[in-house]
Amino acid sequence: MTTFTINERDRFPAQKVEISGRWLFGPGPSNADPRVLAAMSLPPLGHLDPDFLTLMNETQTLLRYAWQTENQMTIPVSGTGSAAMEATLANTVEPGDVVLVAVKGYFGNRLVDMAGRYGADVRKITKPWGEVFNLEELTTAVQTHKPAILAIVQAETSTGVRQPLEGLGELCREHNCLLLVDTVTSLGAVPLFLDQWGIDLAYSCSQKGLGCPPGIAPFTMSPRAVEKMQNRRTIIPNWYLDMSLLSHYWGSDANGTQSARTYHHTAPINMNYALREALYILAAEGIENSWQRHQENAELLWEGLETLGLSCHVEKAFRLPTLTTVKVPDSIDAKAIATKLRIEYNLEIGLGLGELAGKVWRIGLMGYNSHPEKVLLLLGVLQKVLKP
Amino acid sequence: MTTFTINERDRFPAQKVEISGRWLFGPGPSNADPRVLAAMSLPPLGHLDPDFLTLMNETQTLLRYAWQTENQMTIPVSGTGSAAMEATLANTVEPGDVVLVAVKGYFGNRLVDMAGRYGADVRKITKPWGEVFNLEELTTAVQTHKPAILAIVQAETSTGVRQPLEGLGELCREHNCLLLVDTVTSLGAVPLFLDQWGIDLAYSCSQKGLGCPPGIAPFTMSPRAVEKMQNRRTIIPNWYLDMSLLSHYWGSDANGTQSARTYHHTAPINMNYALREALYILAAEGIENSWQRHQENAELLWEGLETLGLSCHVEKAFRLPTLTTVKVPDSIDAKAIATKLRIEYNLEIGLGLGELAGKVWRIGLMGYNSHPEKVLLLLGVLQKVLKP
Repeated sequence: MTTFTINERDRFPAQKVEISGRWLFGPGPSNADPRVLAAMSLPPLGHLDPDFLTLMNETQTLLRYAWQTENQMTIPVSGTGSAAMEATLANTVEPGDVVLVAVKGYFGNRLVDMAGRYGADVRKITKPWGEVFNLEELTTAVQTHKPAILAIVQAETSTGVRQPLEGLGELCREHNCLLLVDTVTSLGAVPLFLDQWGIDLAYSCSQKGLGCPPGIAPFTMSPRAVEKMQNRRTIIPNWYLDMSLLSHYWGSDANGTQSARTYHHTAPINMNYALREALYILAAEGIENSWQRHQENAELLWEGLETLGLSCHVEKAFRLPTLTTVKVPDSIDAKAIATKLRIEYNLEIGLGLGELAGKVWRIGLMGYNSHPEKVLLLLGVLQKVLKP
Repeated sequence: MTTFTINERDRFPAQKVEISGRWLFGPGPSNADPRVLAAMSLPPLGHLDPDFLTLMNETQTLLRYAWQTENQMTIPVSGTGSAAMEATLANTVEPGDVVLVAVKGYFGNRLVDMAGRYGADVRKITKPWGEVFNLEELTTAVQTHKPAILAIVQAETSTGVRQPLEGLGELCREHNCLLLVDTVTSLGAVPLFLDQWGIDLAYSCSQKGLGCPPGIAPFTMSPRAVEKMQNRRTIIPNWYLDMSLLSHYWGSDANGTQSARTYHHTAPINMNYALREALYILAAEGIENSWQRHQENAELLWEGLETLGLSCHVEKAFRLPTLTTVKVPDSIDAKAIATKLRIEYNLEIGLGLGELAGKVWRIGLMGYNSHPEKVLLLLGVLQKVLKP
């Protein structure tokens, strides 16, 4: 019999994990609420344990509140926001379906890439990074391309733009098309009425407006979207994100009543604790109060930036309260300043992406970080570094 | 302008998350090491923070030790074990490729399902649940079907069988075929020499042998598997699990040296802390010591079960140390006993799946739970309930 020997090459003298923390004022993750971190470190339960099934029901109910939807199929996907993004397309796109993507930043392009992988006939309309589409432009595009799905990002994390969504639900219903909206940087922090606005597919993340670490991702689909999925001619070409399978584990709850749940995959138990706690904190505050808090603290930031002689990349009417793109003054090296902030002040801000690389910083005020004293801390540090 | 009103239906009077814990002696998750839970609740960092990049390097190095591989492309997938399972197929299967799956339990069938979704010409050989394949049977099957990939489960969580893998690497190389192995219930706990055994693709989970909560999943591919991926004629039809993209975020590290890492998706930061801590604990113990501990505690369990008049479903030579299938005596309702254990003793064991439903219990002793005093606790409870 052959003997096998232990390879010790990679058994390096590691130590326990030590992280001292950071002020996270970038595009996300933002700092987690300590109550959420405490919930996350509770002992795991089995994924079919009755206590865990109760927590699943509660999470689904609270997610519906956060999104202002009554969609039955509202669940946390067992991955990060991009997994939930992919889930919206994987379940509803069939080869040859026209998917119209309104691109005005990095994440619009990601939707284009993903939709193509599922065989969509992708049509793309674009705007410069920092602008929004108006209803007339989107109406014309829908009339022209007659898509099965119109996809658009509400809160473009790459540009700091808040895309108005009013009227799109009616437009999509008139043209028998599903409305897919990226709410990664808006859920819990920016006004969003999923049902009243007629949104059919949406996804988000845990680490921005909800004040939770990344690793679990809200997902919802309307009855119209479920119907498209159920009428597919082809199998869903993604097992992990297949909502027709996942619905047996997550979908059978109706308004909090427990019924049979069938194993699909082992849920990330502790991430579910964390998300459930974050959603409870949001519900206790009241969604409209959270939206108002984010707006007020963003305005405090914008005033402070102006005082420092800095200007924002996006017109005020369309600025996101969660993510502000700040123009980098001509003589300044954006990256050098970000590095200085991290090293000297233990503080993270984001750099520009794509078209805006080198031109803007991205400053996030999200969830647990959207508080006035933290805005003042950030402004104080910026003043010290930029106007010493 | 239309006014939208807050729907309060789902703002139920939730309370904070409270979980008192459970003895998890089922098929997984098993109880997490408290040191891992502590690491997981440290404050999040940004996914491009230099401190996090260092932690990524360390995690990759420690994963290579745990798997006994020098594969460069060894990373934690941002999802649970099934996501990493799907990643092995999504990246390497092209439409029409013959994938031969040796099925002897539930998870073999899952590989069949997944491979089919990626367009594989799936061939299946089967064994009754509780048995293993021998090298002659697998050799004949490879000669007959000439697959591009041979897929087999080392540790079948549904049956408690440990499939011997010696010789398969040579077989697959002779026939120019990749060897894909499910190590979900073996990594860290059952002897496994990835490189010496010539395994090309493997995946695992965090919540079994590693003593970490679920939510992040080890994945590795050999240079041969990377080559097949790089020579694809078709795009990888899964964005989230696309290793050609992920390699820019995870793949550029070489033996612990840091180099540029490019954003793909936001990693589940705190799950990465947890996995890194779990892997450090394993390396500190020494992989061969962990394997021996799991074997010794399993033997203690098997002896105790015999004393109680219970017998195991699997022949001793092929029993997994991590997961034991115990025959349910004729007059006993398997589910009623499991419920009693949960309610009266706060202890979880697993029920049979598929062919073994109602016929066996599944008892797990994994990672942090593989300790003699816990085996004695479990045996004491079983005696009390079965022989009162």
